[in-house]
Amino acid sequence: MTNEEFFGGAALQSWKLVVGRFDKALAELSDEQLQRRVAPGRNRLYYILGHLTAVHDRLFALLDVGARLHPELDEAFISNPDGTLADPVPAAELRRAWSEVNARLTAAFEKFTPADWLARHTQVSEEDFAKDPTRNRLAVVLSRTSHVAFHTGQAVLAK
Amino acid sequence: MTNEEFFGGAALQSWKLVVGRFDKALAELSDEQLQRRVAPGRNRLYYILGHLTAVHDRLFALLDVGARLHPELDEAFISNPDGTLADPVPAAELRRAWSEVNARLTAAFEKFTPADWLARHTQVSEEDFAKDPTRNRLAVVLSRTSHVAFHTGQAVLAK
Repeated sequence: MTNEEFFGGAALQSWKLVVGRFDKALAELSDEQLQRRVAPGRNRLYYILGHLTAVHDRLFALLDVGARLHPELDEAFISNPDGTLADPVPAAELRRAWSEVNARLTAAFEKFTPADWLARHTQVSEEDFAKDPTRNRLAVVLSRTSHVAFHTGQAVLAK
Repeated sequence: MTNEEFFGGAALQSWKLVVGRFDKALAELSDEQLQRRVAPGRNRLYYILGHLTAVHDRLFALLDVGARLHPELDEAFISNPDGTLADPVPAAELRRAWSEVNARLTAAFEKFTPADWLARHTQVSEEDFAKDPTRNRLAVVLSRTSHVAFHTGQAVLAK
């Protein structure tokens, strides 16, 4: 492995570890427990799961690694806060969507060369990217990894 | 910048962003609010702040970037769970320790070359590192970054 490959490998390893920890927290909760709020007046775990799934599903386009799988989740879990709309899908279906989205993203990341990691994401223009090449896919994946960790800290409180 | 430098830069940027978000959550809480538990029966924010400070203080030795600043925090915040010992320092002092530790670590990370990021951490032997070179400083910093994000998710619930 080259040094560059070790860097990409570390980002991938961190993504897998953190998503795996959320998976573990999720596996320890029943569908009924997913209806609990993480704190009084705060989001239900069901909503957090939907939110993370929708945010990750948007990575397909943002990182240009394929078509998204669940655009139907945006309305309930991104455009609106918890409690606004009726729950759009049963918890079991949401769990499957979460696993499916992450499995496909992880498979895409596993194929990334160092140049792929450092390529621009699709929300930055070529012109802007030339001025600021830190707006790359790697920065997006590190950011989403922290985002999952943030919500895992909340999910473990509901056990 | 070389590709390798962009990789190290992304890890540093992620560390700064995530620590900055915990700082922000912390700045919005009074010392009295730090005594709140993040959920019924769970840790107080005061304890989480002490825990993160002690864990980060241990990075100096783990990453071989200088002497640690606050070994006195380990007993209360690493060896024992919340509520076991009397609070060892006032909240204001803990806030200062947290800022000081992170400022020094960040300054050290800013000087890391790509080879520095990929060098072994001190808890792995040269022999074991030769077998598994992913046990490097970069992996440690990415792991601690996720750890801060995890607890930030809890800290924001206490507002």
